Amino acid sequence: MLKKKKFIPNWTETPPPEKSYRSIFKLGKQNEFKHPSYAWYKMMKKEFGLSDEDFRIKQKEGNEAVTLNKKSGLSKEQIEKFSEIVGKNNISTDDYARVKFSHGAMLFEVLDLRENKVSFVSDVVVHPRDKNDVKKIVKYCDEEKIPIYVYGGGSSATKGLTPAKGGVTLVMNTHMNKVLKLNEENHTAVVQPGLMGPDYEEALNRAPERFHAKRRYTCGHFPQSFELSSVGGWVVTLGSGQASTYYGDAYHIVLAQEYVTPAGDFKTYEFSGTATGPKVNDIMKGSEGAYGILVELTMRIFRYQPENRKRFAFMFPTWEAAVSASREIMQGEFGLPAVYRISDPEETQRGLKLFGADKSYINKFFSMFGLNPMEQCLCIGTVEGEKGYAGHVKKMIRKIAKSYGAVYLTGAPVRKWEKTRYKEPLMRDDWMDYGIIADTVEASVTWDNLHNLYQGVRSYIKNRPGTVCMTHASHFYSNGTNLYFIFILKPESMEEYTEFYKGIIDVMIEHGGSISHHHGMGKLFGPWMEAHLGKEQMGVLKALKSHFDPNNIMNPGGTLGLDIPDDEKRVIK
Amino acid sequence: MLKKKKFIPNWTETPPPEKSYRSIFKLGKQNEFKHPSYAWYKMMKKEFGLSDEDFRIKQKEGNEAVTLNKKSGLSKEQIEKFSEIVGKNNISTDDYARVKFSHGAMLFEVLDLRENKVSFVSDVVVHPRDKNDVKKIVKYCDEEKIPIYVYGGGSSATKGLTPAKGGVTLVMNTHMNKVLKLNEENHTAVVQPGLMGPDYEEALNRAPERFHAKRRYTCGHFPQSFELSSVGGWVVTLGSGQASTYYGDAYHIVLAQEYVTPAGDFKTYEFSGTATGPKVNDIMKGSEGAYGILVELTMRIFRYQPENRKRFAFMFPTWEAAVSASREIMQGEFGLPAVYRISDPEETQRGLKLFGADKSYINKFFSMFGLNPMEQCLCIGTVEGEKGYAGHVKKMIRKIAKSYGAVYLTGAPVRKWEKTRYKEPLMRDDWMDYGIIADTVEASVTWDNLHNLYQGVRSYIKNRPGTVCMTHASHFYSNGTNLYFIFILKPESMEEYTEFYKGIIDVMIEHGGSISHHHGMGKLFGPWMEAHLGKEQMGVLKALKSHFDPNNIMNPGGTLGLDIPDDEKRVIK
Repeated sequence: MLKKKKFIPNWTETPPPEKSYRSIFKLGKQNEFKHPSYAWYKMMKKEFGLSDEDFRIKQKEGNEAVTLNKKSGLSKEQIEKFSEIVGKNNISTDDYARVKFSHGAMLFEVLDLRENKVSFVSDVVVHPRDKNDVKKIVKYCDEEKIPIYVYGGGSSATKGLTPAKGGVTLVMNTHMNKVLKLNEENHTAVVQPGLMGPDYEEALNRAPERFHAKRRYTCGHFPQSFELSSVGGWVVTLGSGQASTYYGDAYHIVLAQEYVTPAGDFKTYEFSGTATGPKVNDIMKGSEGAYGILVELTMRIFRYQPENRKRFAFMFPTWEAAVSASREIMQGEFGLPAVYRISDPEETQRGLKLFGADKSYINKFFSMFGLNPMEQCLCIGTVEGEKGYAGHVKKMIRKIAKSYGAVYLTGAPVRKWEKTRYKEPLMRDDWMDYGIIADTVEASVTWDNLHNLYQGVRSYIKNRPGTVCMTHASHFYSNGTNLYFIFILKPESMEEYTEFYKGIIDVMIEHGGSISHHHGMGKLFGPWMEAHLGKEQMGVLKALKSHFDPNNIMNPGGTLGLDIPDDEKRVIK
Repeated sequence: MLKKKKFIPNWTETPPPEKSYRSIFKLGKQNEFKHPSYAWYKMMKKEFGLSDEDFRIKQKEGNEAVTLNKKSGLSKEQIEKFSEIVGKNNISTDDYARVKFSHGAMLFEVLDLRENKVSFVSDVVVHPRDKNDVKKIVKYCDEEKIPIYVYGGGSSATKGLTPAKGGVTLVMNTHMNKVLKLNEENHTAVVQPGLMGPDYEEALNRAPERFHAKRRYTCGHFPQSFELSSVGGWVVTLGSGQASTYYGDAYHIVLAQEYVTPAGDFKTYEFSGTATGPKVNDIMKGSEGAYGILVELTMRIFRYQPENRKRFAFMFPTWEAAVSASREIMQGEFGLPAVYRISDPEETQRGLKLFGADKSYINKFFSMFGLNPMEQCLCIGTVEGEKGYAGHVKKMIRKIAKSYGAVYLTGAPVRKWEKTRYKEPLMRDDWMDYGIIADTVEASVTWDNLHNLYQGVRSYIKNRPGTVCMTHASHFYSNGTNLYFIFILKPESMEEYTEFYKGIIDVMIEHGGSISHHHGMGKLFGPWMEAHLGKEQMGVLKALKSHFDPNNIMNPGGTLGLDIPDDEKRVIK
């Protein structure tokens, strides 16, 4: 008998047509692909009651060429003025550039682009050459009341760069993308905001060759969007890297900043500690382009010592055990791991399946240790730093994990994770070709509220029939962590999905989580800001807005909820 | 022959008369004394060319009873209103209370009080019972435009609580001085702002007995003013404890705050990391009562494990070697010491003399290691945390110190320092009884500017004939530290001293230091704020001021330089 050939969907393996919508929303490089494994495919089929038939015809691929039936809202003279400031070669008014630099990587933006729908577009795209260009642009825009949006790496997950009011988009990663100075004595690097993650890390790793430095360095910040994001973006959206538990969030890594604002320009001092009143350096972090434009940063750097890296992985018997052990580790005062992640049972179980590790003999192995496949939770991590330190921290982590019934799995799972850590999101495009959505939300949480938030959000998501929900915690502090919810579903309609999504944010707030642990607010979460922070704290953010930007030209149209009308604000019971 | 009896000045050993000026400015408890040793006395005599005769008659001791010829600036009705809010027993309008709670511990304030001079005094002293009292008071004062000043522990070194415009002084340590909650799961304590250092630490150390906790905890914050300062004061003035290199500055230790302001009341979330825009929690830190009144704090706490503490002391051959080794330690990524201090040659030399350790055989011992008494620099420190961690960090510090030519001195000098760490300032009163002033300034500095700042400030101070100047660095970060200058002199007049002092601050700014590393700005440094931070950053602080306190009732009269006229601003060339 002839064995039936295994059906594999025709995942897209060719770069999108040039100047197409798809070339804009496609994640990763144009010729870079990461397809769902066969195990993934089987799992999704089963999950959503689909058959191979459903994966024969792709939907709304967005392969069409970008065309805009929208004239620039700026006058010829205004565009001429920008051209004078930055030079003719550094402005674009063609449809493609206008659409490309008006979009980030948020799922709703992708859904629109797949339908060739462009809701918001900037009138002119400008590539400033240096901070003096930015100063002239801000001055001119303030005089003419032209909105300014900033495009760093384009990876915003919160509609941070959507030009809701048209105007000009400044692209920072064209020219303002350099390491200006490596200060080995101060352990700092002075960089421009458009510097992309991999270029920055490479410059630091190769510091002896590039800067005649005595040592090699690392930036310490490795978000999943590392390859697609800029250093300036990390800071203004309050990002966290996957190794933040040791190196800190972007908030902690940036030491000083220089801003251009309608109210004037300034550079903060490079002091770690100082007692000269509220710290303007910190006030600007997370301002998402609504107060001014970040034009230069001094970042802390760290010794690059990959040879010292220790890896570990454990299987905990339950989510409760994984959480309690993690808390004890973070409060243990023996140093901290760099990467540290715990997955809930659903993420663990699916993960094992996807790696083909759900075989009966593997389950037998775990059950020997009293672990139950439906309850067990995976933990992976690394320790960095000096050799003896790394060894000691790993030893202590093993000791604590063991006391909570965990089985040590060696460092192998971590090496596997390290290989694909930046590529996982690329699968999103494949799924969407067949109408399946993979999206995420995440919240900060204190230890004493973790289970409450976990159960509340998870129940809400799982309450929707046929919805995958995988959860992990990945950024740890002595007093809490974050919860990251990944959900996969096949929505009935955009409307159905949108309402479902809004409900998740409501539930997060109702259960005492923050709306975002490390993706910023953008225009996506603006409507929830007041419900989350309260009128008084929003009043502070608005007062700063009025000071910096009285004409509301800086990223207007919902950013941080600063300028949205009352009837668009989300009310939480 | 009869040996002449050693003359020892008649240091004051009795508590000041009740209700006297001295009872206000005296440091420490009324019956607590710490006199200069004979070695100290000899050194000062020699230094200033004095004889025993000069130490026979005390000057301006301030033993007179406080009397004010100044009526309250508030009406009877207004005072009646405060009485209604907090209860009759919780307000005072008598001269003594008004003067006492109008003064901190700054040297210029002491000099005034010794002359029975009261430049600024509040009209009524109020002891709020809880945050509801504070809310009513702020609301009423805002309506009536009555200035509000806050007295925490009374240890301000920057005229932070001087009631420059009269009005009401709120004393926080009378009633609002409690640990409200110990949250062992989150590793936090919720406290009231008037809680004094020793009470707080005692509550945490005795957590099992006090709160049925599983473990003992420590607050991690031990400024020299520990016994005289309040938790709220630590935060609003941006203090640093002596163990800040490990535990962080007050800025890092406070997790959430609740404020009452004329623009409304709010409480920030207890998230360590969150990406919901600029962090209002951080904006309030260092606001020194000029934006609102801190009424509750959530502080991070740490495991109390004194049994793990490791102590170390070294003698480095030179200041340069001590600085370079310290930098390498702070950048070594093997963990951090808790206490860590390096003294410059003058402080080291005088320190040895004061401890009677300048004997020839000791110098011979050091010279065996190639150390020169005129150049050598003392380093002392501790490591805290988990046992293995503490051991490893100490081992690494010894290794690095050795590579810079340091001689290990065991932990004995640290134990000696620990015994008197909070008591040293008490000697100030003795010196001043004989017209000698001991004062300090301190600045934040980056590593690459340390020697420049050190030389600049030291040269200026030493340029004044007969002036002792001892310098140390005591709060370390990977990218810099602080420089703490202690100077002792016998001023010709107050005018001479004031001009000399102002010159020091000018020189600090000119040489790229911050005006303060951990004492705040108060009204003392207000005139330098704009020269230091620039108009643009001052603009941000002023915009926040206008938002929170449009009627300028919160600590008005120079705090943070927010409301001083242009002609009072110090201009730096």
